[in-house]
Amino acid sequence: MPAVIPEDSVGIVQPQKIEFNKPLQLSCGRVLESYHLMVETYGELNADASNAILICHALSGNHHVAGYHSLDDKKPGWWDSAIGPGKAIDTTKFFVIGLNNLGGCHGSSGPNQLNPETGKPYGPDFPIITVDDWVESQARLADHFGIEQFAAVIGGSLGGMQALQWSINYPDRLRHCMVIAAAPKLSAQNIAFNEVARQAISKDPQFHDGHYYAQNEVPKVGLMLARMLGHITYLSDDGMRSKFGRELRSGQISYDFTPQFEVESYLRYQGERFSTEFDANTYLLMTKALDYFDPTALEGKPLSEVLAKAKAKFMVISFTTDWRFSPERSREIVDALVDADKQVSYAEIEAAQGHDAFLIPIPRYLDVFNAYMQRIEADTDSMTSKGAF
Amino acid sequence: MPAVIPEDSVGIVQPQKIEFNKPLQLSCGRVLESYHLMVETYGELNADASNAILICHALSGNHHVAGYHSLDDKKPGWWDSAIGPGKAIDTTKFFVIGLNNLGGCHGSSGPNQLNPETGKPYGPDFPIITVDDWVESQARLADHFGIEQFAAVIGGSLGGMQALQWSINYPDRLRHCMVIAAAPKLSAQNIAFNEVARQAISKDPQFHDGHYYAQNEVPKVGLMLARMLGHITYLSDDGMRSKFGRELRSGQISYDFTPQFEVESYLRYQGERFSTEFDANTYLLMTKALDYFDPTALEGKPLSEVLAKAKAKFMVISFTTDWRFSPERSREIVDALVDADKQVSYAEIEAAQGHDAFLIPIPRYLDVFNAYMQRIEADTDSMTSKGAF
Repeated sequence: MPAVIPEDSVGIVQPQKIEFNKPLQLSCGRVLESYHLMVETYGELNADASNAILICHALSGNHHVAGYHSLDDKKPGWWDSAIGPGKAIDTTKFFVIGLNNLGGCHGSSGPNQLNPETGKPYGPDFPIITVDDWVESQARLADHFGIEQFAAVIGGSLGGMQALQWSINYPDRLRHCMVIAAAPKLSAQNIAFNEVARQAISKDPQFHDGHYYAQNEVPKVGLMLARMLGHITYLSDDGMRSKFGRELRSGQISYDFTPQFEVESYLRYQGERFSTEFDANTYLLMTKALDYFDPTALEGKPLSEVLAKAKAKFMVISFTTDWRFSPERSREIVDALVDADKQVSYAEIEAAQGHDAFLIPIPRYLDVFNAYMQRIEADTDSMTSKGAF
Repeated sequence: MPAVIPEDSVGIVQPQKIEFNKPLQLSCGRVLESYHLMVETYGELNADASNAILICHALSGNHHVAGYHSLDDKKPGWWDSAIGPGKAIDTTKFFVIGLNNLGGCHGSSGPNQLNPETGKPYGPDFPIITVDDWVESQARLADHFGIEQFAAVIGGSLGGMQALQWSINYPDRLRHCMVIAAAPKLSAQNIAFNEVARQAISKDPQFHDGHYYAQNEVPKVGLMLARMLGHITYLSDDGMRSKFGRELRSGQISYDFTPQFEVESYLRYQGERFSTEFDANTYLLMTKALDYFDPTALEGKPLSEVLAKAKAKFMVISFTTDWRFSPERSREIVDALVDADKQVSYAEIEAAQGHDAFLIPIPRYLDVFNAYMQRIEADTDSMTSKGAF
């Protein structure tokens, strides 16, 4: 709990649940007749709705991107370091939207929400959702707010994939696209890690084929294992070395199976906490969205040709020790954009924190981010001056 | 099954069980009053016992290093590619010993063997074993064969750690030490992966706190997960990309949780097969031996000072895409040996196969291996000519 809400915080924020009754055709072939999204917004939408920024979340993220829900909150939203008055994404200038994606477990339509057709939780019957589906649902969210064109769509990791897909699916609806710590598609190794996590969850006896809500149980062990494994891939080898090294919890080896090295107890703690907070069916859906993401799959053309239709300006950012989505993967995106004759800036940030770095206020990262946000602001101002004002 | 046993194979081999009745003091403080080791040997020990080579196995290895147990065997021993008449480790010249380490599950004293004191399987009561303990038990095995000094102690991965420890604990008992794809100690990331595997096994409801033998059950899911995860760390990102890419099993996405990408079904198959073949308690012990390995821990001195007492000549080999024990880790060993003024050769082999490369007959690897074996042979010949013959 902050003693006082910091001055550069968006402060106490209130999520809102927005209902959509127009059926949504999904990539998997199924249709969601109606759905709802949990959303938070920060800052104010200007008169010509030209200052809106959409933040897309990663695997375990949600709509609570910045600020506090109450003074009792221990932590602010997941990207509070980047969003607030005077911060990189300045809420005195921009209207920022965060949402929980479809299939999520923080209030948007998803496995842990009631299926209006049955009155019971969707559970494993919630359809498989793709990045394309998310973009479509987010476009309708933009419609809801009367936003014709975003000043920027921004995301890290799986969020960056959504931003990239936005630029392809709705070329006219975003002026800037920021793709941070992402990849144009998953590698076999990425998919392999996801598959181990899925097996851990789905083979947990308390998973009950996804119908654990009715049993009043939770596949805690499976979720814990998935998170422990995920955590290793979010950190770098170097980062773990400097954070934990081979430090022993009690100073000496005990020759048993209690956690002995600091890294063991850290991972167990992270895993156990996550297993009480996150929904297993959602975890499965999110990993599938990652596996399936490949903007070239539908058209069967190289990424540069698929990106040809994009009209946004791009900022791509990677982190040196990120081995989940390494700088090489970001450069694939940059190369495709260059080949497609798009405006693209690229920064590779020196950072020891691995994939997690995208959430950390590293000075050079903030500098780059701030500088690019100035461009977005300038473009937004020029939009407004061209308008009716 | 080979139609015909190849000419360069050691042929049909017979394991032997060797009993030891002298109590073994273990690092953990406990004592094994008696124990047995499963052993295979290939080639013939010469009259002055100067041509013996000890092969130390890695996490899931055993005594069956080369040859076939019967004509029905689908595969030969785990390092058959390197051992046989005319192969790198030439059994017409050397007497080669392979063993299943203490705590193993292939016939040596370990969790799945009967505890002579209770008449029941040791299960989780089998003591935690360290690399030091293995070296001690292997020294007694050398005594058993009348081998005062090995021509070489050779191992890859965890086997390489045993070879390194041999050079420290018994400086006079080996002339050459080959440390392949190893590290001077595990990193926090290495330990973290091991801990996820341990949690997967020990939290499997069929683990029964390690007493699953009595329940006639096996923690198959836990072992499967451990192996799937291990497998990812044995392969390289590049290797997986070229082996599996994003190939779909049925040619198209099915939008469900069946294995869709080739890499998913490959991992599931590997994991499931392993879970029927390997013992869960042994897996836990092996990962602990890895975690605890640190030749500097006891003396609290830098590795170079600990290695000062070594008298062997060293060959260290690493593989470019090995990220489990990367070339950097091998170079730590080389640097320590150089600082300690030891004779050391080092080769970094270009290989796409990651950690697994140490088991694969890659041409340059074989060339380097062969060349070094010639040195070992020359040293062995000069020993024999100095002797009573």
